[in-house]
Amino acid sequence: MLRVAIIGASGYTGGELARLLCNHDRVELTAATSRAQQNVPLADIYPHLRNRTAVVCSAPDVAQLIEQADFFFCAVPHKTAMDLVPGLLVSGKKVVDLSADFRFRDLRVYEHWYQPHTAPQIAAEAVYGLPEIHREAIRQARLVANPGCYPTSITLALGPLLQAGVIDPGSIIIDAKSGTSGAGRGASVATLFCEVTDGFRAYKVGGIHRHTPEIEQNLSHLAGRPVTVSFTPHLLPLSRGILSTIYASLTVAADEERLRDLLRQRYRDEPFVRVLDDDRQPATQYVRGSNYCDIALTVDRRTNRVILTSVIDNIVKGASGQAIQNMNLMCGFDETAGLTQAPLFP
Amino acid sequence: MLRVAIIGASGYTGGELARLLCNHDRVELTAATSRAQQNVPLADIYPHLRNRTAVVCSAPDVAQLIEQADFFFCAVPHKTAMDLVPGLLVSGKKVVDLSADFRFRDLRVYEHWYQPHTAPQIAAEAVYGLPEIHREAIRQARLVANPGCYPTSITLALGPLLQAGVIDPGSIIIDAKSGTSGAGRGASVATLFCEVTDGFRAYKVGGIHRHTPEIEQNLSHLAGRPVTVSFTPHLLPLSRGILSTIYASLTVAADEERLRDLLRQRYRDEPFVRVLDDDRQPATQYVRGSNYCDIALTVDRRTNRVILTSVIDNIVKGASGQAIQNMNLMCGFDETAGLTQAPLFP
Amino acid sequence: MLRVAIIGASGYTGGELARLLCNHDRVELTAATSRAQQNVPLADIYPHLRNRTAVVCSAPDVAQLIEQADFFFCAVPHKTAMDLVPGLLVSGKKVVDLSADFRFRDLRVYEHWYQPHTAPQIAAEAVYGLPEIHREAIRQARLVANPGCYPTSITLALGPLLQAGVIDPGSIIIDAKSGTSGAGRGASVATLFCEVTDGFRAYKVGGIHRHTPEIEQNLSHLAGRPVTVSFTPHLLPLSRGILSTIYASLTVAADEERLRDLLRQRYRDEPFVRVLDDDRQPATQYVRGSNYCDIALTVDRRTNRVILTSVIDNIVKGASGQAIQNMNLMCGFDETAGLTQAPLFP
Amino acid sequence: MLRVAIIGASGYTGGELARLLCNHDRVELTAATSRAQQNVPLADIYPHLRNRTAVVCSAPDVAQLIEQADFFFCAVPHKTAMDLVPGLLVSGKKVVDLSADFRFRDLRVYEHWYQPHTAPQIAAEAVYGLPEIHREAIRQARLVANPGCYPTSITLALGPLLQAGVIDPGSIIIDAKSGTSGAGRGASVATLFCEVTDGFRAYKVGGIHRHTPEIEQNLSHLAGRPVTVSFTPHLLPLSRGILSTIYASLTVAADEERLRDLLRQRYRDEPFVRVLDDDRQPATQYVRGSNYCDIALTVDRRTNRVILTSVIDNIVKGASGQAIQNMNLMCGFDETAGLTQAPLFP
Repeated sequence: MLRVAIIGASGYTGGELARLLCNHDRVELTAATSRAQQNVPLADIYPHLRNRTAVVCSAPDVAQLIEQADFFFCAVPHKTAMDLVPGLLVSGKKVVDLSADFRFRDLRVYEHWYQPHTAPQIAAEAVYGLPEIHREAIRQARLVANPGCYPTSITLALGPLLQAGVIDPGSIIIDAKSGTSGAGRGASVATLFCEVTDGFRAYKVGGIHRHTPEIEQNLSHLAGRPVTVSFTPHLLPLSRGILSTIYASLTVAADEERLRDLLRQRYRDEPFVRVLDDDRQPATQYVRGSNYCDIALTVDRRTNRVILTSVIDNIVKGASGQAIQNMNLMCGFDETAGLTQAPLFP
Repeated sequence: MLRVAIIGASGYTGGELARLLCNHDRVELTAATSRAQQNVPLADIYPHLRNRTAVVCSAPDVAQLIEQADFFFCAVPHKTAMDLVPGLLVSGKKVVDLSADFRFRDLRVYEHWYQPHTAPQIAAEAVYGLPEIHREAIRQARLVANPGCYPTSITLALGPLLQAGVIDPGSIIIDAKSGTSGAGRGASVATLFCEVTDGFRAYKVGGIHRHTPEIEQNLSHLAGRPVTVSFTPHLLPLSRGILSTIYASLTVAADEERLRDLLRQRYRDEPFVRVLDDDRQPATQYVRGSNYCDIALTVDRRTNRVILTSVIDNIVKGASGQAIQNMNLMCGFDETAGLTQAPLFP
Repeated sequence: MLRVAIIGASGYTGGELARLLCNHDRVELTAATSRAQQNVPLADIYPHLRNRTAVVCSAPDVAQLIEQADFFFCAVPHKTAMDLVPGLLVSGKKVVDLSADFRFRDLRVYEHWYQPHTAPQIAAEAVYGLPEIHREAIRQARLVANPGCYPTSITLALGPLLQAGVIDPGSIIIDAKSGTSGAGRGASVATLFCEVTDGFRAYKVGGIHRHTPEIEQNLSHLAGRPVTVSFTPHLLPLSRGILSTIYASLTVAADEERLRDLLRQRYRDEPFVRVLDDDRQPATQYVRGSNYCDIALTVDRRTNRVILTSVIDNIVKGASGQAIQNMNLMCGFDETAGLTQAPLFP
Repeated sequence: MLRVAIIGASGYTGGELARLLCNHDRVELTAATSRAQQNVPLADIYPHLRNRTAVVCSAPDVAQLIEQADFFFCAVPHKTAMDLVPGLLVSGKKVVDLSADFRFRDLRVYEHWYQPHTAPQIAAEAVYGLPEIHREAIRQARLVANPGCYPTSITLALGPLLQAGVIDPGSIIIDAKSGTSGAGRGASVATLFCEVTDGFRAYKVGGIHRHTPEIEQNLSHLAGRPVTVSFTPHLLPLSRGILSTIYASLTVAADEERLRDLLRQRYRDEPFVRVLDDDRQPATQYVRGSNYCDIALTVDRRTNRVILTSVIDNIVKGASGQAIQNMNLMCGFDETAGLTQAPLFP
């Protein structure tokens, strides 16, 4: 059994890591940290895990942690992550980091959107943890930068079309909608039940959301040239789920079936990507609690645009599930271990 | 007191008309029809209206109706509407029709998207009931075609920019999201609570929603030339509210404040349009139950696109509230009569 | 126009007072206070009120407030209320206080459940603001203690049966469920969207909720002898609404229609109480946004118990609406002024 | 691999059986029936199961079914169940029936609340499938009557207290609240999203819900004498979950810790019952998607009553999960096989 620790266990991605690890037969959760809730059993912070884990949260003390576990999920905010991760690597541990700190190839981009980077050498070796694109590199990595939730849903949908060169990279508009768990478990008025329920709004409009450069890095990599996108996130009155609606102008004939085949072929052997047929549309509730990404493609002949709709559970494939998928690859486990649960509907 | 009737009172727009008319001091609801629930008190169909109306639903018998009322809201489905409306007009009554039957200037468009039109002469005299654009014509009309919900939110947001010629009409992409009341009160599996709650999906993707030609008619009128748009509707897990996120390429310098001024100037005297300042974003919950349309404008300098976000309550400004606003104009009442309630939040 | 101020305007009851006052034609909102958001326009704190009020929040400075208004709604927490109210009364102002500070006839009870009382003389003159029971005293009062939300829904339902002596006062069990707005607008993890949505729980189980003694005070008054109840509150995943399900053993024959008549007769002339017929059941969504209390009565012949179900909107009839009803009585306005809106459904 | 069939797969309990069976390593889903959706792949009816099952729904033809499977879940309505089950048993198959048809020991009770029983001999051999009470009999059974959702949550909570004789059986009042999935997947206006969301109501008030006699059968069995209860169900605006709040008068000293110990001792070795400590309260969201029943006990010293709160996921422990637990016992599998997923929160 691999001894695994969660650094930053009290947030929603931390709790979700614990939930998924409960069902993973190759690992044992041996440590969890929470700065704010030290000495509190994880099952008190997350009562759904009662009887499932006896782990008690401790302070994030690297010296102690490296005695307790061999594999680490780092689920703390950016900046804090790059302070912690080097100490883990130097002790010979493997790490999946769920923050933005190690996601960028070009640290100038990171520093423009975030802050000065304090561990550039480690950033240079980190592998971007989207298994459908970087599987082999992930297998060899000791540090994987787990992708952002929005970038995951968008990159998987657009990738095959960009690689095939069938869309105009300058025409991409992404209208994305996320469940509220993406805003985290911190106390705040803006995410109170009464503020969110029965309501809907956009936020960070105008290309200012920090996932924008991560999306563009991924798409540029796939297109083989710089891609700039319009990206607008919205807040949905539901807990889990992201749906990205993506618009792009076609550079080829508007043959819906042929375009859909590009997706089907690309993801034929992928365990967690489901390409939908005909006029079926994905829905967040059909991937809830699972590691699936469901994608549909439609052509609007009137405007010669393609419309992609892509859904994930933002805290599974968009965070904790993908992190476990990455761990599975890094540790030589079956890639789907711990992630085989069917989605929960209704 | 004006005697008013609702034809098709058992649907959500019918119920909402009744709710709003309860608070209108110039009218009296004297008749309501429901094919499926004849002889049932309206307050039994809509228990929130208990003690507020004694009207009992009858069959939609025009001969009887013209004895009972002088002004009619026709809230039945398209096709049924064009069967009923001529008989009301011929009896000298005024009508606001909430279906699509009289919304199109070019009946070939109507017939392409709907069905053969059986009352073309009446269609020719109908006025499209968006008061912010056709106020004077509405005052003179005896038949007003009440706009669709999506077209209302979209036309109000885009109108001033199209008229000013500052955006490329060929670049317009509209990603719209509607609450579930828009799907009506008919029994159906797709709109059951368990199918909709905690979920989100697109529908009628690819430019096939019937509001598309209505949107394009409005925008073409405002632009002074044909406009074709990409329009994708989505279903929100909430009852009331539409948010339309609209993207367009700028043909002028990206001066956010100047563009916002176009909206502010245009709607300065409008009682029901609120243009937001700075980086504020509208939210459906801030217009709930009211006749407001809240609009924000943001420029994405990175892509030289403008992003408009526009919200309405789909069954108030998107249907029944706008219908009453039209009645007020047609009857010489204060335009805001019966519509002065502040939105309900939370 | 009566000049009115809201002390503590940033909470949900403060916002709701402002919403309702917007539609009251005899008053003008001239001041609002918020310790945390001084100098912020109320319409920025509550964007649904944009264009409806120009009031800017100030610090709660009594000397300044008495210059600005003649009638005060005090919507601050208990303890703070009894610090502020005396200064207003001494200046000749009238006050409706929405806290618990002036609700108790016996200050020993208050001090047992809350804290030492610092204004006992003023407490002695305060009138408990349930108009259906204390209407005449309210008309004469300069200080009205606005009832708690749970006590309102429960007292209105049980009162007529207790007064008629048809139930055993020792058998009363109250299972009450409240929407989340009752928990206030303070930042807290427990009331985050993701913690509340799609979930349900009891809280303060075992007779320890502070509304227990207020309920018992009311019921004892009506029964003419001490009444002790079991009261269990629950948290509903919705914003507005309380439903109380109340069980009591009958001391008379189980004649449902006769018992229901006790309610009907008692509330025949009440503008805000609706007694339901036959087997109809009230629902929170049928009173949303309104000042109604809907009550149904059912007899379980198998156990000889009566079951009452009573619903209100917790921030209207359970707080701000009832406060305005009290103001109307205290100022000689029509009792329903500003409160005539029909409920919002769906 | 055991070949398993679901008769009545298109309802929510049918879909949930399929979801859970996907994760069961000892069985294979080989057939599913749906009268209304013959020849439709189950994954089209339930898109969350895409890629997880290739089963296509057929008509419920017993002759064909007995060729296709060896174990049957019968998830059709009562009456239909007793028409189908005899044919399966006679072919040597084992059956878990999820309807009410085989739950009653006394068929006069069944016939009073339902209809004439057409398979009384088979009813006589059926075992009531609450494993925590009838585990050994279930192991030997070929027909298990899966309990109702409300009765499961209530019986597990009250059983230990009734068996210990510490409460007055005549004083039991049960106020229960269920998510909307309990109302099934049939098209109906009453369970539309807009009718249920943001609302709450009681239904079948007055002891008339058909689970009443099933609850009383269970409690009478445990108490060793006839028990009559007050039972009031309510409809929650959420998909999954039942919370039952149960009140009873104590016949012993109000020693909370000693009473709680009765529960703890009773369920110490049960894999799916979690008894909460101290003043913790269960919540439906902490058992979502799992087979757990969480129970808390509180004493109200003021009234000498005990209050039990008990939660389950109504379509897991309240239906499909418990059915699989029963299958596991009937087939000699590990009792928890296929049911080990941790609850999904948030």
